[in-house]
Amino acid sequence: MATSDSIEANHRYVKNVIQKSKNLSDWYTQVVLKAELADYFADLKGFHVIRPYGYSIWEKIQSILDKKIKATGHENAYFPLLIPEELLIKEADHIAGFSPKVAWVSHGGKKELKARLAIRPTSETIVCTLFSKWVQSWRDLPILINQWCNVIRWEKETRFFLRSKEFLWQEGHTLHCKEEEAEEETLRMLEIYRDFIENDLAISVIIGKKTDRGRFAGAIRTYTVETMMPNGRSLQLGTSHNLGQNFTKKEAFNITYLAKDGKERFPWQTSWGVSTRLIGGIVMLHGDDSGLILPPKIAPIQVIIIPHGRDKYSEVVIDTVHHIVQSLADNHGFRVKVDWRKKYRAGWKFCEWELKGVPIRIEIGPKEVEQKELLVVRRDTGEKIIVPISEIDDQINLILQKIQKNLLRRSKNFRISHTNRVKSLEQLTDVIDNQNGFIIAFWCGDSKCEDDIRERTGLTSRCISIEPSIEIGSCVCCNKTGNYELTLGKVY
Amino acid sequence: MATSDSIEANHRYVKNVIQKSKNLSDWYTQVVLKAELADYFADLKGFHVIRPYGYSIWEKIQSILDKKIKATGHENAYFPLLIPEELLIKEADHIAGFSPKVAWVSHGGKKELKARLAIRPTSETIVCTLFSKWVQSWRDLPILINQWCNVIRWEKETRFFLRSKEFLWQEGHTLHCKEEEAEEETLRMLEIYRDFIENDLAISVIIGKKTDRGRFAGAIRTYTVETMMPNGRSLQLGTSHNLGQNFTKKEAFNITYLAKDGKERFPWQTSWGVSTRLIGGIVMLHGDDSGLILPPKIAPIQVIIIPHGRDKYSEVVIDTVHHIVQSLADNHGFRVKVDWRKKYRAGWKFCEWELKGVPIRIEIGPKEVEQKELLVVRRDTGEKIIVPISEIDDQINLILQKIQKNLLRRSKNFRISHTNRVKSLEQLTDVIDNQNGFIIAFWCGDSKCEDDIRERTGLTSRCISIEPSIEIGSCVCCNKTGNYELTLGKVY
Repeated sequence: MATSDSIEANHRYVKNVIQKSKNLSDWYTQVVLKAELADYFADLKGFHVIRPYGYSIWEKIQSILDKKIKATGHENAYFPLLIPEELLIKEADHIAGFSPKVAWVSHGGKKELKARLAIRPTSETIVCTLFSKWVQSWRDLPILINQWCNVIRWEKETRFFLRSKEFLWQEGHTLHCKEEEAEEETLRMLEIYRDFIENDLAISVIIGKKTDRGRFAGAIRTYTVETMMPNGRSLQLGTSHNLGQNFTKKEAFNITYLAKDGKERFPWQTSWGVSTRLIGGIVMLHGDDSGLILPPKIAPIQVIIIPHGRDKYSEVVIDTVHHIVQSLADNHGFRVKVDWRKKYRAGWKFCEWELKGVPIRIEIGPKEVEQKELLVVRRDTGEKIIVPISEIDDQINLILQKIQKNLLRRSKNFRISHTNRVKSLEQLTDVIDNQNGFIIAFWCGDSKCEDDIRERTGLTSRCISIEPSIEIGSCVCCNKTGNYELTLGKVY
Repeated sequence: MATSDSIEANHRYVKNVIQKSKNLSDWYTQVVLKAELADYFADLKGFHVIRPYGYSIWEKIQSILDKKIKATGHENAYFPLLIPEELLIKEADHIAGFSPKVAWVSHGGKKELKARLAIRPTSETIVCTLFSKWVQSWRDLPILINQWCNVIRWEKETRFFLRSKEFLWQEGHTLHCKEEEAEEETLRMLEIYRDFIENDLAISVIIGKKTDRGRFAGAIRTYTVETMMPNGRSLQLGTSHNLGQNFTKKEAFNITYLAKDGKERFPWQTSWGVSTRLIGGIVMLHGDDSGLILPPKIAPIQVIIIPHGRDKYSEVVIDTVHHIVQSLADNHGFRVKVDWRKKYRAGWKFCEWELKGVPIRIEIGPKEVEQKELLVVRRDTGEKIIVPISEIDDQINLILQKIQKNLLRRSKNFRISHTNRVKSLEQLTDVIDNQNGFIIAFWCGDSKCEDDIRERTGLTSRCISIEPSIEIGSCVCCNKTGNYELTLGKVY
């Protein structure tokens, strides 16, 4: 039998997480490991295992987002993992951007391959090869495809979920007759991401357009969804690209369609994606010194029920728990789990489920049964609420909604309180000396100024506003007319 | 505009499929391509694209099977794609079996790797590396994990879904305290596969144990689910392996746990999987000269509604169609689609949806609306049924059930009528001269006899019965005591 010593050791293991405010990076790693979201894999740096609890969060994300992607007319498909080098290099900017990060397959079985194959870092070049076969006439357009898969990018610095050599994602790929349709699609998917990240993941974000420096390799315009980490740094959570005709044009994949007017034309293309990085964002944004705090909409377990009594549960407690589970789970579809384990004390269980970020804990013992009231504890605020058993369904529903809203509000307040507007480089330097976060400034649009700001301050452009700014100021760097409202920040 | 010529060309394209009985192999390829289940990818032999219609079948398979896997206590996780060579070679039989089929990564980014990495052909070695970290005490067992992912095996002969260099699958990996628990698990998953393949995919199968020659590389026992193709050949659809302690033992991954009695022990392991090959089985088994026939339970579209009237639909028809869709889809959850396209004649649409295997077609025009009756056509039998609009929900439900049952019955009848029992090699040769299919014979258990049979007849062992045979005969090859009931067949 496991000794009580080893259980106590486990207890300490679960409990002791470094303070989030003391060392965000270590806190993050500890929470990911201790909550069993992910693990390292052998000595293979940058490759991580997503453990069942972490993966179940990904399944929730997939399930919600997949519905939204399908509701806007997209269908899922699966494209090959490997890309012949000659295809990957067809779009010049694309290969220039990705070649430092590509993993190459040299051998198939015992034989060396005649031409090496890239493991997809993204699938534009694969998809285009197929699009050129599938598209003949305007009747074949639009093509609206999405793929859930793994990709590899040979990153140097890696961190669970936030940046790893292999990650899981969805990548949408669409093809349209008209330029404006492609732009509409790009913005439609950006909005789906924004809505999903804010309303389902409870993460407050900014959206905007990337500057030339931040554009996806091969895109004409890249839009981004970014949030602010607790250290004030920026985390890019999703991007949506208008690829124009860069890939479809003659010199690249030469995809043409017969237009209504009888002419051969090149279609317009988009691609867009979010990845398991979202899980990293959730951990970073919402968690506290006790561990994870999961937004109810994507929490694998929304309610953890902890019956009192370590050695033996009284029959009335067992009956009441079954009754509550049936009502909450079977009748109302809440995701409920009961922790019947006898080897741990209630206090230990509280710690563990707090660490795992379950939004609501219900405690129930003989006293609660007798008084027909339950103790309900909110993970986000620690608030303890006495709820009559007869009202439990409605109350749980209400409290889950409150938690969801509260997490978004917190995240929004933090972002806004860490966003400053500046008019000059001096002001900018002052601000960043005192507070990390986003800085909004007018900008002339010249990459030189962007580079200049970066060199002087370490700040990079996160995005510019999508709509032209109504107000116009002078460029924070060169003082010329600043048509763009630029958001600057440090990258996580 | 697409000319009527090109539409007619499409018409012919959809219609002309080679007869299944004339050339099964060509028929199969044509149906897969024309029904848009899959496509080739560039010149990369053996790598296929699963197109949206094919992928939606996979999504249905995943959705049903995933529930069954979770209902038996398994959780999903995600393990890395790449395996350091030193891990892959730890179990001797395993690497011997897989090394001819492994794709190797030599470069990450611009740099050559110090040690090359295998793309997973299966994940036992990866999973064991993690299990050895996660398991300490008997309290940590069983571990019941499943993974949905892509794998690569560098096959020489490839064919859509049935055998490709990359395929999608699920692989279960479990670890148990006791030998008998592992065996129970292995058989439990075998039964889940059998039940799923027969009752959801309507494919009649045999189940059994593989002989030594057919065992998974690294297993102590492999169980298999196999079906019979229309040419009488055998297709393996799923396998479940009892890995014993081959991977957990000291010389391999050295996974130990502290047992209840305080001793360090090696746990017992299983793994089991089915893949996108199931889609190939569905196509092969159920299809006919007009194309696919999909079992209702996994058909992405169960009912296709084709309104009459090419140029303009009358208002009563439109209203009635909306009413029927609402009733069938929104109220009863059937997967229904209406083909409103105006560019094609009804006859063309009939062909296309037959090709795509939609189980039920409903035709509706002004006459039907007036008479309050619909023409319902079964894909499996071609039977036309007049159904009063008022009874449509119940009737569709009933007909879908009938189709599901009929497909299984057909498949079962075919298998049984192509299975023969023989007592001697002479009889065996006689039978296979006249009919392809399964041959059941007694066997002594000696691999030499197996090899002998193979050399003389081209037949390989499909499986032996799981339970010991009650009757005992003499070995079909050597005439010694035949304790095993062996099923022989040719591999697809």
